[in-house]
Amino acid sequence: MNSVITLTTDFGLSDAYVAAMKGVILGINPQARLVDICHDIKSQNILQGAFILSTAYQFFPERTIHVVVVDPGVGTERRAIVLRTPSFDFVAPDNGVLSYVIAKSCPQAVRRGTPSVTIQPPLEAVAITNQAYWRSPVSATFHGRDIFAPVAAHLSLGVPLEKLGEAIDWLTMLPLSQPQPTPDGGLTGKVLHIDNFGNLITNIRESDIPQRKVEIEVGGRRIARLSRTFGDTCGLLALMGSSGHLEIALREGNARELLHAEIGDTIKIRPSQEV
Amino acid sequence: MNSVITLTTDFGLSDAYVAAMKGVILGINPQARLVDICHDIKSQNILQGAFILSTAYQFFPERTIHVVVVDPGVGTERRAIVLRTPSFDFVAPDNGVLSYVIAKSCPQAVRRGTPSVTIQPPLEAVAITNQAYWRSPVSATFHGRDIFAPVAAHLSLGVPLEKLGEAIDWLTMLPLSQPQPTPDGGLTGKVLHIDNFGNLITNIRESDIPQRKVEIEVGGRRIARLSRTFGDTCGLLALMGSSGHLEIALREGNARELLHAEIGDTIKIRPSQEV
Amino acid sequence: MNSVITLTTDFGLSDAYVAAMKGVILGINPQARLVDICHDIKSQNILQGAFILSTAYQFFPERTIHVVVVDPGVGTERRAIVLRTPSFDFVAPDNGVLSYVIAKSCPQAVRRGTPSVTIQPPLEAVAITNQAYWRSPVSATFHGRDIFAPVAAHLSLGVPLEKLGEAIDWLTMLPLSQPQPTPDGGLTGKVLHIDNFGNLITNIRESDIPQRKVEIEVGGRRIARLSRTFGDTCGLLALMGSSGHLEIALREGNARELLHAEIGDTIKIRPSQEV
Repeated sequence: MNSVITLTTDFGLSDAYVAAMKGVILGINPQARLVDICHDIKSQNILQGAFILSTAYQFFPERTIHVVVVDPGVGTERRAIVLRTPSFDFVAPDNGVLSYVIAKSCPQAVRRGTPSVTIQPPLEAVAITNQAYWRSPVSATFHGRDIFAPVAAHLSLGVPLEKLGEAIDWLTMLPLSQPQPTPDGGLTGKVLHIDNFGNLITNIRESDIPQRKVEIEVGGRRIARLSRTFGDTCGLLALMGSSGHLEIALREGNARELLHAEIGDTIKIRPSQEV
Repeated sequence: MNSVITLTTDFGLSDAYVAAMKGVILGINPQARLVDICHDIKSQNILQGAFILSTAYQFFPERTIHVVVVDPGVGTERRAIVLRTPSFDFVAPDNGVLSYVIAKSCPQAVRRGTPSVTIQPPLEAVAITNQAYWRSPVSATFHGRDIFAPVAAHLSLGVPLEKLGEAIDWLTMLPLSQPQPTPDGGLTGKVLHIDNFGNLITNIRESDIPQRKVEIEVGGRRIARLSRTFGDTCGLLALMGSSGHLEIALREGNARELLHAEIGDTIKIRPSQEV
Repeated sequence: MNSVITLTTDFGLSDAYVAAMKGVILGINPQARLVDICHDIKSQNILQGAFILSTAYQFFPERTIHVVVVDPGVGTERRAIVLRTPSFDFVAPDNGVLSYVIAKSCPQAVRRGTPSVTIQPPLEAVAITNQAYWRSPVSATFHGRDIFAPVAAHLSLGVPLEKLGEAIDWLTMLPLSQPQPTPDGGLTGKVLHIDNFGNLITNIRESDIPQRKVEIEVGGRRIARLSRTFGDTCGLLALMGSSGHLEIALREGNARELLHAEIGDTIKIRPSQEV
């Protein structure tokens, strides 16, 4: 059973917390193939964890098991859950860290403005309550090692979902920011993430942009058109990035530094005046 | 022979030193399963390496081979050794980096205040002297790549311990700080490590605390009781952490920042006045 | 087909770009063994990527596939290529990031002062043009995920080089700095890289130094002789490092900090006046 198991956490790499989880997994399934998605999520930043996960999980083989531990509520009453989608299993706390996964896997289930989502086919979910699949004793502060890791390892060995706990019909959903239409036929969006290159990744998706002839305003600067690649023009440019979101980049430079940009900054898109 | 081999070093991840070790291992045992424990040990900080290793090694499958390269004495007369415990093999320089492993695996061997420990059953150790299992030529400055990695790989293929070098009956031991009893029936301990979340991990273990009704003093602040989880109370809290040590944490915050804490800071525990 | 595939990028570890590449590879070849060489190359610093790669690639098993994505020209007309040497395959953009590999694998092909190198036996190269081995659709900004990763995975399954694209007879070559002889029978070299320990790694190789009795000048300080190991002398020392280059190190300290050294700094070597 050489399933792929990925790990996404806010543990950082200067402690051995991630390694302890890997050790536990390999003790249960020595054939598991472990891949790190990211451990550099800011401490307890659930929304950032949800976003980073959403940029990578879908590129893994079918039936990959994704373990996500950004878990400020560890040891409290928050549920630990497994979410099964048609392609993947997710093992995580029920705190909204799977919001983008749910929005992508089953957009019809999402109702704006509600803090939870009804789990309906093709999605399935269980609350992880069967302690037979946990380490024992369970630390009150490290469920990554003592609950999430062993449950993922047992899943990778073929343990059926219903053995891990009872089916549940709702999960916590974070409000995911959406671009807003403006009276001039444009859009206002936000910076969701700033990557290692200083590229600003926004909440505007290709389908949000009604026409290809647009101009973009960000950080007091105007970008005259959408580019296709980083090499298209000099200076600041806007293009549809690899995650399917509009990105602002600086050719051979760092857009974050140039614009003093931060997560949450506003981006405006308008129909272009260009002939 | 798909043994697990873990790596703990102070090499960081901005060079390719760790990768060179992995390449050497895979050249000898293509089936080895490589797992990073931590490469972010401060340069040449043997005690920190020893502590971080002690928080993860025991969660790996039996017979995992743990390679530890925090080695300021590389190229000098310090010995390279393999330590075999009932569950694991450790490949490391003999500079004390295995002190916590020895204290946990064979506490009866440790004598306070002596800079070495006598190796006795169930422990075994050899000095790595048989160059047949090294890369050739050996760099004078990178034994991780040229001695520790190939020796670990050969061990994972089943090479017997005695082929790697002669048995030895002592290893270097670092002084491991212990909490000290105070006249009022309490304890004085120290901060051993501060993790990525800003939690202070102390040298006080559950068995050191004579009674559960205690109060804690740290950084000029008083904590009224031991909590069970991060969610138990607001503000600063003390609890038995996942490594079995008393930890100081700040709910939804960073205790290190709040307390301007540093490794070596003092923690006091007293019987509680609370009714 | 459990080939080793290594990854070297400037993506950092705070995004999930590296993970997306790994997911794609495992989707094509579930048995591939993935090893990170380094993801901490400075953004778009091709020369640094070339150097870091050159310190590790040769320690991997024969026929390892090395994927290198430091690619400021992604989406432009720069070619994507596979270079086959007698021992390894390299999948990379054609921007010079393989310059050290070429200089080591086939030094006779390199002509100083020219910005390209003629590919001749034992080297072979192809331009990656056959979209049948790419992900579809291809993002204009993330060829690591959509072209380099799937091509490496297909190579690891045994796809012949000629199926990936047409043979090419030249590759881009960066100018690699060489030490220069001085009138007094010495050499002037440069700092190529500064490692995590603060050791300065220079462009001076053992074969460049005509005699063993030399003195070294760096950052206004004089080092009286070459040492063999970090433990040989106190203070600042010079030795032939594990990469085969002259290194400047500070015993139990950090040479970079002591000397306020930077990449590009000058090192002088002179025949020693010592008796």
